[in-house]
Amino acid sequence: MNSEPIESLARLKARFQALPGIGPRSAERLAFHVLREPRQFAAELAQAILDVKDKIIHCKTCFNLTERDPCTICADPRREHDEIWVVEQPQDVAALEATGIIRGVYHVLMGHIAPLEGIEPEDLTIDALVERVRTGSVREVTLALNPTLDGDGTALHIHSLLSEFDVKVSRPARGLAVGSQLEYATIGMLESAIRGREIM
Amino acid sequence: MNSEPIESLARLKARFQALPGIGPRSAERLAFHVLREPRQFAAELAQAILDVKDKIIHCKTCFNLTERDPCTICADPRREHDEIWVVEQPQDVAALEATGIIRGVYHVLMGHIAPLEGIEPEDLTIDALVERVRTGSVREVTLALNPTLDGDGTALHIHSLLSEFDVKVSRPARGLAVGSQLEYATIGMLESAIRGREIM
Repeated sequence: MNSEPIESLARLKARFQALPGIGPRSAERLAFHVLREPRQFAAELAQAILDVKDKIIHCKTCFNLTERDPCTICADPRREHDEIWVVEQPQDVAALEATGIIRGVYHVLMGHIAPLEGIEPEDLTIDALVERVRTGSVREVTLALNPTLDGDGTALHIHSLLSEFDVKVSRPARGLAVGSQLEYATIGMLESAIRGREIM
Repeated sequence: MNSEPIESLARLKARFQALPGIGPRSAERLAFHVLREPRQFAAELAQAILDVKDKIIHCKTCFNLTERDPCTICADPRREHDEIWVVEQPQDVAALEATGIIRGVYHVLMGHIAPLEGIEPEDLTIDALVERVRTGSVREVTLALNPTLDGDGTALHIHSLLSEFDVKVSRPARGLAVGSQLEYATIGMLESAIRGREIM
């Protein structure tokens, strides 16, 4: 003797449940919350969701997320443009920037090499990184990839590609717990890893 | 040396964080997830959020949420319309319906009496309930309010208002843990509480 569910409410619950870390209970609570709030609340949330898709692009230099190209970091004359920090994903830039101690610029690979998942070097922005080193006057490249099997493999691959250039290649110190995600490291862990980075 | 944050991404994180149970980390993960998914995903989520505000109304009979008035339960001739289950909020209807054993119809109070929070009987749909009992041929009213101080107080108030009518007033058995929220009860707890409901 179940009643028909309210279609739009059921649909919103389903959409929320499709987000990472949102189970059926949370999805229901979120849906009812939206329903209870004024329409303005819903309109702003909906607009914010569309905006990240419509306004955010990748910087053509470093591939970080930005609303204008070049991004504010690449366009900043106060940054050390001969010092490139290579990371896997945009979240990692945010994590490193939060330490406030990086003076260089970034290069976002957009992932790591993972042959078993079908991710080959050419699927990443490795060629563009090599091109930056070839054509720019880069002094140091720090491979701040995740301290995981895939991250290490990707770092080794890039290291060998850069060996023909006159550039120092380093990586953050292994203050990072092996197997963890750089994105979730605390600022303290990141700081010690950055300051103690090793020459490769 | 922090970079300017990406405005639209920061705004979406803030909007997600304004939702219940979403902390800064979850908000960031959700925002990046939206960013990574195709635009269609974002568009459907945004539309679903607006739809619950634009399409859902209250049934004029029972005040449950619905997309058309009367709601499917009130309009269903197979339901026992002389048996009214009074609940605090729409979520409670969903919880009771999930048991599949309720044959009656509902009345949603839209809250409970809480003088300290400024919620008086006239802020709820109590008058409409009394009117339903006065004008309809109602046999039994079950006060399925939360087993809390406020829920009990509201039940007592309604019980005294209904005492002038020839109607049986009951409440679910206290299989519900006192102090808990009906919305989060398991189906088993609800079933035993419904079957063992006491005459007040």
